[in-house]
Amino acid sequence: MANTILPSTVTIVEMGPRDGLQNEASVSLEDKIMLINDLSKTGLSHIESGSFVSPKWVPQMADSAQVFGKIARSPNVIYSALTPNMSGLEQAMAARVDQVAIFTSASEGFCQHNINCSIADSLKRFAPVMRRAMNNNIRVRGYLSCVVDCPYDGQTQPDHVAAVAKALFDLGCYEISLGDTIGTGTPVRVAQMLSAVQSQVPTSQLAVHFHDTWGQAIANIYQALTMGINVIDSSVAGLGGCPYAAGSSGNVATEDVLYLCHGLGIHTGVDLNALAQVGQDICHKLNRVPSSKVSQALNA
Amino acid sequence: MANTILPSTVTIVEMGPRDGLQNEASVSLEDKIMLINDLSKTGLSHIESGSFVSPKWVPQMADSAQVFGKIARSPNVIYSALTPNMSGLEQAMAARVDQVAIFTSASEGFCQHNINCSIADSLKRFAPVMRRAMNNNIRVRGYLSCVVDCPYDGQTQPDHVAAVAKALFDLGCYEISLGDTIGTGTPVRVAQMLSAVQSQVPTSQLAVHFHDTWGQAIANIYQALTMGINVIDSSVAGLGGCPYAAGSSGNVATEDVLYLCHGLGIHTGVDLNALAQVGQDICHKLNRVPSSKVSQALNA
Repeated sequence: MANTILPSTVTIVEMGPRDGLQNEASVSLEDKIMLINDLSKTGLSHIESGSFVSPKWVPQMADSAQVFGKIARSPNVIYSALTPNMSGLEQAMAARVDQVAIFTSASEGFCQHNINCSIADSLKRFAPVMRRAMNNNIRVRGYLSCVVDCPYDGQTQPDHVAAVAKALFDLGCYEISLGDTIGTGTPVRVAQMLSAVQSQVPTSQLAVHFHDTWGQAIANIYQALTMGINVIDSSVAGLGGCPYAAGSSGNVATEDVLYLCHGLGIHTGVDLNALAQVGQDICHKLNRVPSSKVSQALNA
Repeated sequence: MANTILPSTVTIVEMGPRDGLQNEASVSLEDKIMLINDLSKTGLSHIESGSFVSPKWVPQMADSAQVFGKIARSPNVIYSALTPNMSGLEQAMAARVDQVAIFTSASEGFCQHNINCSIADSLKRFAPVMRRAMNNNIRVRGYLSCVVDCPYDGQTQPDHVAAVAKALFDLGCYEISLGDTIGTGTPVRVAQMLSAVQSQVPTSQLAVHFHDTWGQAIANIYQALTMGINVIDSSVAGLGGCPYAAGSSGNVATEDVLYLCHGLGIHTGVDLNALAQVGQDICHKLNRVPSSKVSQALNA
C-alpha cells in the first residue's frame, strides 16, 4: 500500500447545489445562484446545478430553469442537471445546460421505490432521452444508486452492479457514477464492487459517489483511488443526501475529499480554503454547521 | 487492494475515560465509574481508565486513584493508567492498575511544549519507571505523539518516528502506540511512517492512535490494517483530544472503528450497539452529541 499507484489528478463533481439543496426545505433562488457562482470561483470544473424533475416530487428544484438562466457561467465549468425523462431533457436544453444526467438503481427494490419501475423499464425509458441528448451533442452522465447495499433489498451483488453499469454505458453514458446511497459500504466490499464493474466498463468511464452516513466515505474513496478511479462526487459542506432513503443523509463533504486528495499528492485544481468558505457561507444561510470535519478544523 | 490481507482480529484500546474525559471541564467521580463499568460490559478488553499525572497539569484526572478503587473490575478487561514518572507509577501501583503507559513525542517541539524536556531526556526519565514497573510484573505501553506532523515543528520524519519507537521498545515497552496527535495524516504519509517504524519494531508490538480532526482517521486506520497493524486506540463517542495542541480535538470514535472493522470482516469482540449506547449515555451527561457518525446513524 505504501507503494500503491494513485491517480495524479482527480476531478471533483460538485453535488451541493443539486443533491445537497434538494434536501433543504426552502432555499431562495438568489442563494442558489450565489452558491453556484461562488463555487465556480474555487477551481471546480463540474457543478451539478439543478434538476428537471417533476416539482411534485422534488419541489426544491422547481426553479432550476431560473437558476440556469441567471448564474454567471464560467467557461471552465460544466453546469449539469438531472433529467429523468424527455420532458426534463427538453427543459434542460431550453435552459442551456452543458450536460445532463440520468439515474437508475443497482437494486430493484430501490428502483421501484425511487422511480416506480423496474431497472429494465428505467433503462428502456432512458433510451430515447439518451438519443435526443446525443443528437444535440449533450453528454449524458449515468447515476447508479445502491451499489453496495439497498435499504429494501439488503446487499447488492457486485455482478448485478456491473451489469447495470454496463447497460448505462452501452446506452451511451460517458461516465457512470457509482453511488453508495445509504453509506453502509466499507473498503473491501467497495473493492469487490469496483472490481466487478471494472471488468465491464473502462475505469476511465467510472466515478464514485459516497455518502458518509456511517463515517466510511473517505476510506472508501481512498480504496477507489488505489483502484484507479479519478472522478469523485461530493457536496460542499456535506450538504444533502437522498430524500427517498431513510437515514441516507450525508453526501461526503468536498472539503474532506480535497484534504484527502491533496494529502495524497493528487492534483484537484480546487482551492480548499476558498471552497470551505463557500461552505461556511451557505451553511450560515441554512442555519447549520458544515458536516465537514475539515471545515470545522479550519474554523476552530 | 481487493485482495489485501487484513488481520482477522483487532484489539481496541478504549481511550474514552482517560484521553476523552481529560478534556472535559468537570466529570463527577460517579459518572467516570459508571462509564468504565458500562464499557466493561461491551466486550472491550482494554480500557485506559485514568492518569497519575500532577493534578496541577491535568486536574480532570485528579481522582484516578478513587476511580480505580471503585470500578467493578471485569477479569476480561485490562484497566490501565498513564504514568509520567516514578511518583505516578507508585500511585498507580497503589491503586492496583493492571498496566501503565508512558508517553513521549516523535517531535522535539511537541516534547518541549508537552512535557518540558527533550525527547532524549524523556527517555532517560522513563528508564527507572520502566525498571520498577517490570520488576513488579506490570506491563508498560508507550505512547508516541506527533508521528505525522507536529503543531510546532511541521512534518515529522518517518525515520525519526522509527528511532524513537525503537528506543521505547528497547526500554521495555510491550507495545508502542503511534499517535497522529493533530490528525493531519493522510494514508500515504501514514504508510511511509508505518513502513519506517516496522523496519525497527515488530508489527505485533505496534498500535495506532488517530485523531479525526481532519476527517481522515478511518482511512488512515484502514491503511494501517492493510499493513498488519491489529491494535487500534479509539474513544467512545469520539470523546477527547489533547489539551496541549490547538485544534487537536477529536479522538477517532470507537463506534466508527468498530463499524469499519466489522464491515471488513475483522473480529473485535466488541458489541457495537452496546458500546454506542454507552457513548450516548456519557454524551447525555456531558450535554453533547457523539461525534461518531455511526452513533448518529444508529440514533437517526
